[in-house]
Amino acid sequence: MRRRKNFDSNSEKLNFIALGGLGEIGKNMYVLEYGDEILVIDSGLKFPDSELPGIDYIVPDISYLEANRDKILAIIITHGHEDHVGGLPYVLPRLDVPLYGTQLTLGLIKNKLQDDLPGYRPRLNEIKARDVIKIGSFTIRFMAVAHSIPDGVALSIETPLGRIVHTGDFKLDSSPVDGRVTDYAAFAEEGEKGIMLLCSDSTNAERKGFTPSEKIISGTLDQLFRMYRPKRIIISSFASNVHRIQQVADVAARFNRKIAFLGRSMIRNVDLARETGYLKIDSKIIISIDDIWKYSDNNLVIVTTGSQGEPFSGLVTMSRGENKAITLGDHDVVFLLASVIPGNEKLVNNTINRLFAQGCEVVYERERQIHVSGHASAEELKIILNITHPQYFLPIHGEYKHMVRHSQLAQEVGIPSKNIFLLTNGDILTFSKNAPPKKHGHIQSGAVIVDGNAAGSIKSDVLKERREIAEDGVLVVSAAVDEKCRLLAPVAIETQGVFISDDTKGVFNELYAAAEQAITEMTGKRANLEAIKKTVKARVRDVLRKRNSSFAVVLPVISIRQSHYHDTEFFEKDFF
Amino acid sequence: MRRRKNFDSNSEKLNFIALGGLGEIGKNMYVLEYGDEILVIDSGLKFPDSELPGIDYIVPDISYLEANRDKILAIIITHGHEDHVGGLPYVLPRLDVPLYGTQLTLGLIKNKLQDDLPGYRPRLNEIKARDVIKIGSFTIRFMAVAHSIPDGVALSIETPLGRIVHTGDFKLDSSPVDGRVTDYAAFAEEGEKGIMLLCSDSTNAERKGFTPSEKIISGTLDQLFRMYRPKRIIISSFASNVHRIQQVADVAARFNRKIAFLGRSMIRNVDLARETGYLKIDSKIIISIDDIWKYSDNNLVIVTTGSQGEPFSGLVTMSRGENKAITLGDHDVVFLLASVIPGNEKLVNNTINRLFAQGCEVVYERERQIHVSGHASAEELKIILNITHPQYFLPIHGEYKHMVRHSQLAQEVGIPSKNIFLLTNGDILTFSKNAPPKKHGHIQSGAVIVDGNAAGSIKSDVLKERREIAEDGVLVVSAAVDEKCRLLAPVAIETQGVFISDDTKGVFNELYAAAEQAITEMTGKRANLEAIKKTVKARVRDVLRKRNSSFAVVLPVISIRQSHYHDTEFFEKDFF
Repeated sequence: MRRRKNFDSNSEKLNFIALGGLGEIGKNMYVLEYGDEILVIDSGLKFPDSELPGIDYIVPDISYLEANRDKILAIIITHGHEDHVGGLPYVLPRLDVPLYGTQLTLGLIKNKLQDDLPGYRPRLNEIKARDVIKIGSFTIRFMAVAHSIPDGVALSIETPLGRIVHTGDFKLDSSPVDGRVTDYAAFAEEGEKGIMLLCSDSTNAERKGFTPSEKIISGTLDQLFRMYRPKRIIISSFASNVHRIQQVADVAARFNRKIAFLGRSMIRNVDLARETGYLKIDSKIIISIDDIWKYSDNNLVIVTTGSQGEPFSGLVTMSRGENKAITLGDHDVVFLLASVIPGNEKLVNNTINRLFAQGCEVVYERERQIHVSGHASAEELKIILNITHPQYFLPIHGEYKHMVRHSQLAQEVGIPSKNIFLLTNGDILTFSKNAPPKKHGHIQSGAVIVDGNAAGSIKSDVLKERREIAEDGVLVVSAAVDEKCRLLAPVAIETQGVFISDDTKGVFNELYAAAEQAITEMTGKRANLEAIKKTVKARVRDVLRKRNSSFAVVLPVISIRQSHYHDTEFFEKDFF
Repeated sequence: MRRRKNFDSNSEKLNFIALGGLGEIGKNMYVLEYGDEILVIDSGLKFPDSELPGIDYIVPDISYLEANRDKILAIIITHGHEDHVGGLPYVLPRLDVPLYGTQLTLGLIKNKLQDDLPGYRPRLNEIKARDVIKIGSFTIRFMAVAHSIPDGVALSIETPLGRIVHTGDFKLDSSPVDGRVTDYAAFAEEGEKGIMLLCSDSTNAERKGFTPSEKIISGTLDQLFRMYRPKRIIISSFASNVHRIQQVADVAARFNRKIAFLGRSMIRNVDLARETGYLKIDSKIIISIDDIWKYSDNNLVIVTTGSQGEPFSGLVTMSRGENKAITLGDHDVVFLLASVIPGNEKLVNNTINRLFAQGCEVVYERERQIHVSGHASAEELKIILNITHPQYFLPIHGEYKHMVRHSQLAQEVGIPSKNIFLLTNGDILTFSKNAPPKKHGHIQSGAVIVDGNAAGSIKSDVLKERREIAEDGVLVVSAAVDEKCRLLAPVAIETQGVFISDDTKGVFNELYAAAEQAITEMTGKRANLEAIKKTVKARVRDVLRKRNSSFAVVLPVISIRQSHYHDTEFFEKDFF
C-alpha cells in the first residue's frame, strides 16, 4: 500500500504544477498532487539552441518528484512525440514508476528505451481511447484526439476536488487520414458533467481560423507527382508523421512508383507503424534502398529523414553529395514535406541551397501546402473551450505569447480573466474545497541539461563559461612557482580561439612580461594560489585592454611546488 | 594619369567578378575590369550568425583589389543599406578611392565613417538619378529605383564591349511614399540601346506575384491607431526605413499624437533624413524622449530601434524592463513594423515573449501587413527582364536558391539557359569582342572577419577553435619541466566550460596521474616542447575517453626551464 494511514487536512487540496511546457514549446511534464498521491502527465525533452553549445537535450528538473518519489502513482503519456516522451530515458532510472499510454505511443517508447536504457524493463500499461481507469484517487478517461502522430489522447481526470481536462496536443481535423476524429462526444460528456479546470494546447493560439486537415497533403502530392512525372522523387518528412507517410505511399501506389525508405528512424518508425497496423502499405511496393538501381527514375520514391536539416540525416548527406545510396542530379526532385521548427531555419535553408547546387529541383514553398500543422488554431481552441466550458482555464504547451493569445481567446468565449491562470514552470496552483484556486508558491523547477555520454546534469555556469570562450576564445597563462612564489620556469602562454590584433609578437611579449612581473612582485611571500591567479589574470587583462587587443577569457593555471620538493631529489613517487 | 601607355590584347576583354553577394544575402561588392581600369559597385558587410561566435561583421576578401589598387577608378554605391555600404570602414583605409552616390547615401556613409574611421576624409562625389558620368572607359547612367530606403539607384554602364545594367536593390512600387517611382523610361531606353548583361536583384525571386506597395502600411497604421486609441503606442522599425517613419509620423499627426524617437541610430537617421528633405515631419509634433511624461498615453507615439531583437536596442531594453526612458505596462501597445531577417528569429521571438510578460499588447502578426519587402517579387523581376531584354543574364544578390529561381524566371521570359550564368563569388566572367562570354578562372575571394576592436582579419582556424571549445569546453594541463624533462612542480589542471560526469574527483585523479606519468616516461631525455605537448594531450584524452567523461578540447601548456636556470639563483632579470 502506497497510501499513508492518516489523511491530514492537506489531502483536501489539489495542486497542479508544470515542471516543463509553460513558456516554452518542449519538455512537457505536468504534475497533479492530491494528498500523498502524485500523477504525472508526459515526460518530454526539448532540443537546445545555439545558446547551449554542445548540449544534446534538455529535460525538466525533477527534484520535486525525486523528493516525493514514493507518492508517484504513474506517468500518463498523451502521445509519442519527443517533447512528451523524450525525457523518459532520464526520468525512469530516477523514478521507476509505471507508464500508461496507447499502443503506438508505448511502441515508440519501447524503441527509445532499447537504445537509451538497454536492460531497463519499463512497466508499460496499454490503454486505448474511451478507456476509463482508476489510479489512486484519480479516475482517468482517455479521449481520442487528432494530431500529427497517430494514437494521441486527451485526458479527463476526475479528482476529489473536481474534473480536470488536459487536451494533450490536438487539432480538430475533420477528415483525419486514419479516420480517428477528435472525440467531440467524450469532450462534450465531460463538459456536461462539469469541468473544473481545462488545460489546453496553446501552440497555434496565434493562428486565426482553422488548421487545415492533414488530408489536403494528398491533393498536393497528386499535383506534384503529375508535374514531376519523369523525375525520381525524394521526399523528406518527419519520421513520426505516420499519416503523411501513409499519404505518400498511397500516391506512390497510384503513380506506380516503388517506395524505398532511408534513415534509421524512418525505417524503424515505418516498421513499428506497419506492425501495429497504423500504417498500411502493401509490401509489394516497398523496396530496399539497395535495390533502387533496378528501377527507372519515374518508378521510384525515396522517403527519408532530414526535413529539419539534421546533420547526419538522409537528406542532408544527399545535399552534401555524401550519401552512399543516393547521388542527386538534374533527374531528381526533392519535396520537403514539413515546416521548419523554430531554431532550425538556418540548417534547413543551407540544406535547400545545397540541394539546388546538386542540380535537382526542390519544392519547399509555403504556397504549395506541403505541410499542415498538428495543432489547433484559434477557432478550434474556442470550440474546445465552448464544448468543455470549464470553470477555470490554464493555457499550457506554449511560449508566453501563445499562452497570452490563448487566454485572450478564452476571454472571448466568456471565461472571466480572473478564472484564467498564466503560470510559469514550477508555480503551484492550488485548488481547495471552499475557496477559489490560487497560485500558492513555487517549487524548484528548471532545466536539466544532458550532454554527450554524461548521464548527469550540468549547472549553468559551465554553459556560461562555454559561451564566454565561444565569443572570444581563451588565453591560458601557466606558471609554476615554489612556496616562496619564485618562478620555477618561464611563464607559458597558449591560446585557443583567440585573435590578437596587428602586432601579435609585441602583444605576447607584453603579456609574458606582465605575468612574470606580477609573480615577481609576490616573490618572497608565501605562495597563495588564489592570490596568484587573481593578480596574473588582472595584469594580463590590463595588457589586452590597453592594447585594445582581445576580450579573450584569461585562464591562469598555476602550480605551487611545496617546500618538500627539491629539484634534484624530485621524482614521481613522492609527488603528493 | 592612371592609364598605362600601351593597351595589350587584354584590353579588349571585360571581366565581371563578384567579391560578395552571390550565394548569400549580404556583403555586396561587384567588380568590372576593363584593361587596366577597375570599377567597383558597392562595398557591403554581412552580419555573422552563431557559427561565427564573437564576430562583429564580415566583409569580402579584397586581396584582388589591394593587389590592383592603382587600377581602381571608383566605388559606386547604389544605396545606403549596410549590405552595400557597411564594408567601407574596412575597405577605404586599404583602397583610398573616390566614392559616388546619391545625397542620402553619402550622408549615411559620412555618419558611418565619422564613427568608424574618425579623421578619414572620404572623397565623395554626389550624383543623382538620371545623371550620366564618365569614369575612365565607363559611362554610367544612374536610374532611380524604389526600395526600402530612399534615394536608391540602378546603374547602366556603357563599356567598350557592351552595356551592363545593374539593378541595385529595387522593387516596382507603383505608389512609393516619396513618389519616386522606379524609372521605367530609363530602363526602357537602355533596353532599346541594347543591353549585353543584366545583373538583377534575386532576393525575392522565390516569391510569386508582386511585392505590395510600401504605402499600404499607412492603412494598417490607421486601423491600429484606431483600435488602440487610448493606449500609448510604441513602434519599432528599421532606422533606415525613412518611408515607414514618414508614414508613422503622418498617422501620428492625424491622431494628434506627438512622436518621440528613441535609440541612437534612429535619432541620427531621422535627423539626417529631415535635414536632407527625405523625411518631412513638422517640428511641432516631435518631442524629446525626456518630455514624454508631459503627455497622456493617447497623445504619444514612441519610435524606436530593436525590430530585430538587437540586444542593446530601445525595444529590447524595454522588454527587459531596463530602459531608462520607458517602463512598459498594460497601458502600452507595441507594433513591430518589420519582418524578421533570417537568423534573427530567436532574438525577435524572445523579445516578443518578454514584451508580453511586461503586460503590454504586442502586434506582430503577419496577417496584419505590418511589413512589406523592399525587393521585387517574381512578376516584377520578369518585367525588368522584359524591359531590358538583355543578351546575357546574371542573377545577383541572393542565396543559391534565389539565383536558381531567378534564372528560371529569366528562362520563362525567353532568355536561353546558355545565356544565363550562375556564378559564385570570385568567378571571373569574361566578355570579349568575338566570342560569347565565359567563366574564365577564379580569383581569391571569401570572407574577412572583423572582430571587436581588432582591425585585422582572422583566419578560419581561430573560428574553428572557438566552435570546438564552445561545444565541449577546454581542459588545460599545465606542467613545468627542466631541460631533462623533470617535473618542477605538480601538474596543474584547469577547465573552462567542461562537464566531468559523475565521479569528478576520480576522473581528475586519473588525469593528474596520466599527465605526470607521460612526463615521467620522458624524463632523462632532452625536453622537447612539441613531444611533451603531444604525449600529455594523448594521455589525457585517453582518460577522458576511457571514462566516457568529456569531449573537451585538451590544451597542454608546457614550460621548459633551460639549463642556465637554477632554482636558487633564478630571478626575473636573467629570464630570457
